[in-house]
Amino acid sequence: MEVAALLTSAGINIAVCVTLFSIYSVLRKQPSNFTVYFGRRVASKRSKNVNFCLERFVPTPSWILKAWETTEDEILGIGGLDAVVFVRILVFSLRVFSIAAAVCLFLVLPVNYHGKDRLHKDIPLESMDVFTIANVQQHSEWLWAHCLALYVITFSACSLLFFEYKSIANLRTLHIIGAPPSPSLFTILVRSVPWSPEESYCETVKKFFSSYHASTYLSHQIIYKCGTVQKMKDDAEHVFRVLKDGTMENTSKPIFTHCCSCGGNTNSFQMINVERNSALESTTNTSPDLDMRKKECAAAFVFFKSRYAALLASKILQSSNPMLWVTDVAPEPQDVYWSNICIPYRQLWIRKIATLIASIAFMLVFLLPVTFVQGLTQLDKLQKMFPFLTEILKSKMVNQVVTGYLPSLILVLFLFAVPPMMMLFSSLEGCISRSGRKKSACWKVLYFLIWNVFFVNVFTGSVISQLSVFSSVADLPVQLAKAVPSQATFFTTYIFTSGWASLGCEIMQIYPLLCNFIQRLLKLNDDSQNGTQNFPYHTEVPRILLFGFLGFTNAILAPIMLPFLIIYFFLAYLVYRNQFLNVYVAKYDSGGQYWPIVHNTTVFSLIFAQIIALGVFGVKHSPVASGFTFPLVVGTFLFHQYCRQRFLPSFKSNSAQTAIDMDRRDEESGKLREIHQHLHSAYCQYGLLHDPDLPRCFSHCDPDEEDAQFSPQRSLKGKEILKKEKSGSFHRTSSTKAVVLGGM
Amino acid sequence: MEVAALLTSAGINIAVCVTLFSIYSVLRKQPSNFTVYFGRRVASKRSKNVNFCLERFVPTPSWILKAWETTEDEILGIGGLDAVVFVRILVFSLRVFSIAAAVCLFLVLPVNYHGKDRLHKDIPLESMDVFTIANVQQHSEWLWAHCLALYVITFSACSLLFFEYKSIANLRTLHIIGAPPSPSLFTILVRSVPWSPEESYCETVKKFFSSYHASTYLSHQIIYKCGTVQKMKDDAEHVFRVLKDGTMENTSKPIFTHCCSCGGNTNSFQMINVERNSALESTTNTSPDLDMRKKECAAAFVFFKSRYAALLASKILQSSNPMLWVTDVAPEPQDVYWSNICIPYRQLWIRKIATLIASIAFMLVFLLPVTFVQGLTQLDKLQKMFPFLTEILKSKMVNQVVTGYLPSLILVLFLFAVPPMMMLFSSLEGCISRSGRKKSACWKVLYFLIWNVFFVNVFTGSVISQLSVFSSVADLPVQLAKAVPSQATFFTTYIFTSGWASLGCEIMQIYPLLCNFIQRLLKLNDDSQNGTQNFPYHTEVPRILLFGFLGFTNAILAPIMLPFLIIYFFLAYLVYRNQFLNVYVAKYDSGGQYWPIVHNTTVFSLIFAQIIALGVFGVKHSPVASGFTFPLVVGTFLFHQYCRQRFLPSFKSNSAQTAIDMDRRDEESGKLREIHQHLHSAYCQYGLLHDPDLPRCFSHCDPDEEDAQFSPQRSLKGKEILKKEKSGSFHRTSSTKAVVLGGM
Repeated sequence: MEVAALLTSAGINIAVCVTLFSIYSVLRKQPSNFTVYFGRRVASKRSKNVNFCLERFVPTPSWILKAWETTEDEILGIGGLDAVVFVRILVFSLRVFSIAAAVCLFLVLPVNYHGKDRLHKDIPLESMDVFTIANVQQHSEWLWAHCLALYVITFSACSLLFFEYKSIANLRTLHIIGAPPSPSLFTILVRSVPWSPEESYCETVKKFFSSYHASTYLSHQIIYKCGTVQKMKDDAEHVFRVLKDGTMENTSKPIFTHCCSCGGNTNSFQMINVERNSALESTTNTSPDLDMRKKECAAAFVFFKSRYAALLASKILQSSNPMLWVTDVAPEPQDVYWSNICIPYRQLWIRKIATLIASIAFMLVFLLPVTFVQGLTQLDKLQKMFPFLTEILKSKMVNQVVTGYLPSLILVLFLFAVPPMMMLFSSLEGCISRSGRKKSACWKVLYFLIWNVFFVNVFTGSVISQLSVFSSVADLPVQLAKAVPSQATFFTTYIFTSGWASLGCEIMQIYPLLCNFIQRLLKLNDDSQNGTQNFPYHTEVPRILLFGFLGFTNAILAPIMLPFLIIYFFLAYLVYRNQFLNVYVAKYDSGGQYWPIVHNTTVFSLIFAQIIALGVFGVKHSPVASGFTFPLVVGTFLFHQYCRQRFLPSFKSNSAQTAIDMDRRDEESGKLREIHQHLHSAYCQYGLLHDPDLPRCFSHCDPDEEDAQFSPQRSLKGKEILKKEKSGSFHRTSSTKAVVLGGM
Repeated sequence: MEVAALLTSAGINIAVCVTLFSIYSVLRKQPSNFTVYFGRRVASKRSKNVNFCLERFVPTPSWILKAWETTEDEILGIGGLDAVVFVRILVFSLRVFSIAAAVCLFLVLPVNYHGKDRLHKDIPLESMDVFTIANVQQHSEWLWAHCLALYVITFSACSLLFFEYKSIANLRTLHIIGAPPSPSLFTILVRSVPWSPEESYCETVKKFFSSYHASTYLSHQIIYKCGTVQKMKDDAEHVFRVLKDGTMENTSKPIFTHCCSCGGNTNSFQMINVERNSALESTTNTSPDLDMRKKECAAAFVFFKSRYAALLASKILQSSNPMLWVTDVAPEPQDVYWSNICIPYRQLWIRKIATLIASIAFMLVFLLPVTFVQGLTQLDKLQKMFPFLTEILKSKMVNQVVTGYLPSLILVLFLFAVPPMMMLFSSLEGCISRSGRKKSACWKVLYFLIWNVFFVNVFTGSVISQLSVFSSVADLPVQLAKAVPSQATFFTTYIFTSGWASLGCEIMQIYPLLCNFIQRLLKLNDDSQNGTQNFPYHTEVPRILLFGFLGFTNAILAPIMLPFLIIYFFLAYLVYRNQFLNVYVAKYDSGGQYWPIVHNTTVFSLIFAQIIALGVFGVKHSPVASGFTFPLVVGTFLFHQYCRQRFLPSFKSNSAQTAIDMDRRDEESGKLREIHQHLHSAYCQYGLLHDPDLPRCFSHCDPDEEDAQFSPQRSLKGKEILKKEKSGSFHRTSSTKAVVLGGM
């Protein structure tokens, strides 16, 4: 591919992006599209009326300014900690690739270009290979430039990673401290409650916790079987009973009692509870009770009097049989993935293995369309397959479009099917929370992308066939060193098509826009459809990490890619901030759990880039450069190990200190009683099933409160509290705390 | 190698064994050897006088009878849970290889022998290869016999493993419940106490725990720097100060106060404490105090009021910085590895990585002598290297001895250096307990043995050179399938030399016997030398597991090995039981932590055997047999995963239920106060350094109590308690408990 072709491709994509951004800036001003482009504001009912004027039809960059000016605290308030982590990924990428670009464009690129003594053509007609490391001669002394660049990139990436990890870990602690009392911190999820013939699960749970956690146990709430299959079974039973009894009288009662049988201490439920008890006592027929026992799962939410007690109960092995009384930290009420909580704990390990195998199988089957797409980049193959295209392909313009644009586009279209598939696998895996499911899907999509975009393209393009390359591990660096530089052009165009263009699609919200348009055309007015989506972290985080991976691996091999990558990250920074502000609603939050994924992937990318560099220096017969690269690999690995043990545990569990400090604060301010009363109604299983027969019993999940939960005050509050404590106003723990936080 | 040569080798080894056992049975009756052969009894002062009579010089099998008749409860009382686990390994091996031998000798061996249509010689002159799978023709239909045998072996091994794991997990719980109150259950080890300029570590610890664990915190004990370097530094400082001050008066005081400054609640120490305080108050010179602060480590033992509180504190992340306030379950007092406790926690991760690399490097350097040894099995090479041997080697007898015996003997001698080396690595790694160090060394020795005895021998003997075999992972099964059967003879002789003969050496206790003899010759009478050794689990467990590994991998390939293996396990059963009864003293116990190692290694051996079988069936072109073996590999892997999650957590941590039940029992019987008083003096750092200047302050570690600690009553007590509780006499928790334990 020539430079001109690359620039054509870049030009097309820039035009597409500018067009899309302009259309967006017009469309967003149309009141009819408010539900599409301001889903979050509509959900929080803060939309304003806009009068008709000409300005509405002129593209303006106001949204860019708004996105640029928003502070991190605002993002934190609106999108939760996950949104901040996401923006931090972009900032980190921008920083590290700016440094990389500065070094590589001024040091490595000239070395590559003048690597071989040859007559250079005009730059637009120059082949792209001239700018890659492939143009450097063997035994060249100039390879130290590449080695130096690698050192600079690694050191800047590692130091930035370290400070980001530290700051996000801190932010996480502050976020937890400053949050309004979350019921999840007082609650644990118990699974695998042992079955006993005499007692119901409800009684067993009560007995166990009031015996072993007597001083801290508050109450509990049994989980009932749900899910489609269960619903169908219930319906069938219901119909059967109706037909048998000939009356409709008793049928709604058993369902009615589900939500209230346990944890019914609040006033709003006592009435129903009493009603139910009297109804039960008055009839000699005990079948509703037996019925309920049948529908109980061996799982329950157990509420404790303090956060510390819940933390302890969730971390300790309860029984000497580790398969019984399995405890976990409970997810936030709106984060609970109800249908998975009922899965028997015994099944989980086999489900995990099965989904792992299924995901790997899916990754491998996906090779077929990708290899086909890869074939399209070679014009001669295309002409053989479709002889009628020969004439068209002779045109230079079409030629450039086909080689530069079409292959990546098809790949992107195929990739659309992947995230839903991985989400399905993660559901089957048995995650108990929605955020956990998304995080698990995020890992899967990431592996998928790195394998199917990077490895498959690298190795299909070169001699070796797919899997066999891993059969000889020792040769891998050399094989990569030969294959990666030749694919640099493909990856650069991939940045245009999958990167830039997808940002345009993201901001245009094409699918919701179409839905909205059709809805208005048909004059439907369904309020439940008005686009309050959650941010798709499981597709966007892997996408950005993939570009980071491509950037690191190609930085010293084909530095010409870096400016395009920086443009991508910059656009992404603006677009995603805009989307967080306007479109997506943060219904649930994982509390920054995406950062460890980012950290691990970045370290993997760095080590991978170093291994490729080792291979390249080997191929170019430069033992000195190889010798200097090896300690870099070891150093990066040690850095990773250090960060793992320095930061990871605080992402896996709250600390005792935090929990106790929060408990004390609430106890001193007298809030604890109020919190306890709210706990009983926090988790409502049937409220989320939208069953019209059931009372809507959750007082906690209305959208207004949701927004308040991620208020900007939240983290500020945390900081203030810490400041107060540091200055000694919390006299009891101040000095120890200062020591501890000082060491963070 | 011919059958006759093999039998010669077996004959020599049997003769050696019988001789050694006979000599042992005479030597053990000589009163002068009591310290060698009855070290345990001498240590517990239960030796009896034996009069001179003729019977003393006649070999008798009485020790065999005694070893045979001893019950498991007696072994548990004498050697602790680790000894029981060790005996169980032998029993498990005996059982599984009896089944394997029955199947393989009657089904597989005839198939191998008649595998090819050829004229068979007399059996003694027959080559050993005729009895291996190498003799079966390609495309043979009889390979189903091997596949069936593999199924039988796998199923019997897995079911036996499952029941053993279950029974040992149960035994572990009973052992903990039935044990006399152990101080370690009330204690945690805190490391990485944050440094503060104003306070000493002692005060920081006190402040932290009395703030965050106010209701359960009892007291603590700071750990002081020790070790040779520290001692040298101290001595130098001491000399310097003596020279400077010209007086000796103040010098012993700072050391004197080490043990008592914290946790000094018992009467015996208060006096010294008071003395010290008054001494400090009377002088304006604060240097002893500063001196002490300098010698403090950032680590402490913290004592809690109940087992449950200590368990909780040890499992929870204390601070939001995971590198501060790192808590661990404390080892038993006699199990503490004092010099490692002072290692800063920050160093541990890098120490672990460094020792891992060092161990691997050691493994690889060790190849040199082993390849030399392997060269000795080929007579022609030997004749080339030492031409003067040509005449001698022509004799048939010498020939057989050299090929059948000498190579293994040299290997065994080399292997003697390995365990001390691995023990050194484990010390450097930073284990905080002696048992943990031994367990870690056990893993290292195991990897070492499997690599250096199995892989190196298999692949040096065949075409492929050492490490390159792993560069092509896909070909590994085929390479193994070709190489393993040809090395079956070597492994069989290895069982004689390393197995049988080493048992003879073990029971003879050659090194202590020599020491004893020289001592008596020189009329030395040093009591401290009288052989109270701990059982060397780190050498013996890997040895037995290696033989198991050889057995599983060779079972269907060369079944002729199995009878010899069974003889080995039977002899080992008798010898080791005798040694537990008479020789070794259980100073510390890991609580059955060796079983997970055994389980993992056995599953690895099984899967490895199945992979080799896959390779063999591939080489013999039997797709049906390969097809049937593949699900077996998957099934074994799933079994392993299930066991991991069913049993492993209970080996890693006590359960809340157990701890709470034990606490309640002690509270009800009023013992708790007494236990608390004992706690302060349980951990004494300087008592174990044998420093004559320091008061011997541990009231807990005298040898008589030690024996009582592992009394047979211990596990019986646990069983009784459980029985009582099941029958309802512990009314408060009986029903829940029954549910829980019923599910075990």
